[in-house]
Amino acid sequence: MGEFELIRQIFMPLAGQSGSAALLLGPGDDCAIQRVPPGQDLVFSIDTLVEGIHFPHHYDAEKLGWRALAVAVSDLAAMGADPRCFTLALTLPEARREWLEAFARGLGSAAGVFGIVLAGGDTTRGPLTLSLQVHGTVPAGTALLRSGAQAGDLVCVSGTVGDAGLALTYLDDPDPSADAAAVLKRYHFPMPRLELGRRLRGFASAAIDVSDGLLADLGHILQASGVGARIDGALVPLSEALCRLSDHGRLRAAVTAGDDYELAVTIPEHRWRALADDVREQLTVVGSVTTEQGLVIINGDDVQGATGFDHFGDV
Amino acid sequence: MGEFELIRQIFMPLAGQSGSAALLLGPGDDCAIQRVPPGQDLVFSIDTLVEGIHFPHHYDAEKLGWRALAVAVSDLAAMGADPRCFTLALTLPEARREWLEAFARGLGSAAGVFGIVLAGGDTTRGPLTLSLQVHGTVPAGTALLRSGAQAGDLVCVSGTVGDAGLALTYLDDPDPSADAAAVLKRYHFPMPRLELGRRLRGFASAAIDVSDGLLADLGHILQASGVGARIDGALVPLSEALCRLSDHGRLRAAVTAGDDYELAVTIPEHRWRALADDVREQLTVVGSVTTEQGLVIINGDDVQGATGFDHFGDV
Repeated sequence: MGEFELIRQIFMPLAGQSGSAALLLGPGDDCAIQRVPPGQDLVFSIDTLVEGIHFPHHYDAEKLGWRALAVAVSDLAAMGADPRCFTLALTLPEARREWLEAFARGLGSAAGVFGIVLAGGDTTRGPLTLSLQVHGTVPAGTALLRSGAQAGDLVCVSGTVGDAGLALTYLDDPDPSADAAAVLKRYHFPMPRLELGRRLRGFASAAIDVSDGLLADLGHILQASGVGARIDGALVPLSEALCRLSDHGRLRAAVTAGDDYELAVTIPEHRWRALADDVREQLTVVGSVTTEQGLVIINGDDVQGATGFDHFGDV
Repeated sequence: MGEFELIRQIFMPLAGQSGSAALLLGPGDDCAIQRVPPGQDLVFSIDTLVEGIHFPHHYDAEKLGWRALAVAVSDLAAMGADPRCFTLALTLPEARREWLEAFARGLGSAAGVFGIVLAGGDTTRGPLTLSLQVHGTVPAGTALLRSGAQAGDLVCVSGTVGDAGLALTYLDDPDPSADAAAVLKRYHFPMPRLELGRRLRGFASAAIDVSDGLLADLGHILQASGVGARIDGALVPLSEALCRLSDHGRLRAAVTAGDDYELAVTIPEHRWRALADDVREQLTVVGSVTTEQGLVIINGDDVQGATGFDHFGDV
């Protein structure tokens, strides 16, 4: 069997069934075809992961499959979108069956959990690099943008931040403690906040996913919205595992670490009160939006001047 | 200025204006938003180009910009789609202003000619690799597929094939002849057959763009359609420049060379006669579709057994 045929066989089970409502035509032609339902907008984003930059050399293929899709789908969560389909541009040095099967297993698990199907792709020989483009839909005009934050809005963050960043310390630990295992899980198997994003449509005034660090990503909202914010460092949600594992400088580390894939959102106060309890429970209010530009952090002196992860970025 | 800001400034002029009919939201948020008009299908494809595989090391950045978009847009031509917008995942070793500006110039020229705007992207540090995803639209249900060829249909190819493949011989020629310059232009600045593709909607029974070589790509149509074809090698259209530059084995080279980005299509005879003259003039009938599977080439003994370019491929 040729390498191309091997790749085709391994990825075909992930393909969306052609003729389904979401995907008129899946992999195998020059293009895929999607019919976006009337009254819906198409929401899409492309993300690249490079070996040695976004994941370690010789990273486990199954984890890579999950992570690559999770990272991409997280952008749909940040828009409040429902996942539909994705394309995969996979560049790899050689087509080894074992690696490909493990990668497809991780990718397929994630696709099943996130409710998204493979629409098409391109595989090429070269240094290990993945670009995934994800497609989602939202009722027309309801996508959550970065640009809608207004002075007085509450600044909220979902879950806890910093775990995935702390996990980098334990990547080579042959026998991690339970706490280390907990933060490692956040790194290897991020869970994009899809359901939360959807539930925030019509409530959040701005949203972003925390991929480059809470400070950096919150900064993107503030810049896009032309506002500032005042954050209370003591309110930033940290996991119990992180608190046990780290001490000095842990707040700074937590708000500048990437890869958490939580949501940072701004919500007008009256809409916050109108949110369902189970949605509010997923969020922590950490501050509020201000007219004065810039991000001020109280109760977190060691954080001032810190920025997030940046080796180029989204265009 | 940071590298990220440099990249943003250089690519922003290519961005689609947010709020336009095609693109509700362009670069700068977690996702872009496209509103597909009612009664239209979204047609999309992702393509990767790797340095040293799909283009030479130290390839001119401006030519790379053009080529990368042309190669991707050619898949839209093969579907008969109208180009709308594209995303760019650009991985590059360093953010040099001069290189980026030249690349964006080539990309921007191509985008202007093809009528497509930048919707978003991701730039990362790593070995030079580009993935572009292009979005087009077609009136619902009219996209040209690979799978519709039927016995008796005419097999046609647009323009001439083989020039881009032959050009590889002259890439390092410091002073190419006029003929060499002509084939080099085909390699550096491919022109996807967008207008022809659109005009073939409702006429062609199957279509593909010639990226891997006429034989290989025609083979994809035959396989997808469950048919065979009989091709007359003497009818395969070759440019005058190619005929002057090469002699022995030129047909074999021409039908197995990639990168021409012509269209190979099948058309029922009665629809061929119904085509407008100016469309027919862009096509050459080279054979017909047969019930017997397989591709038979007469008047081209040296071609039997030849296949096209393949280092992995589309999923």
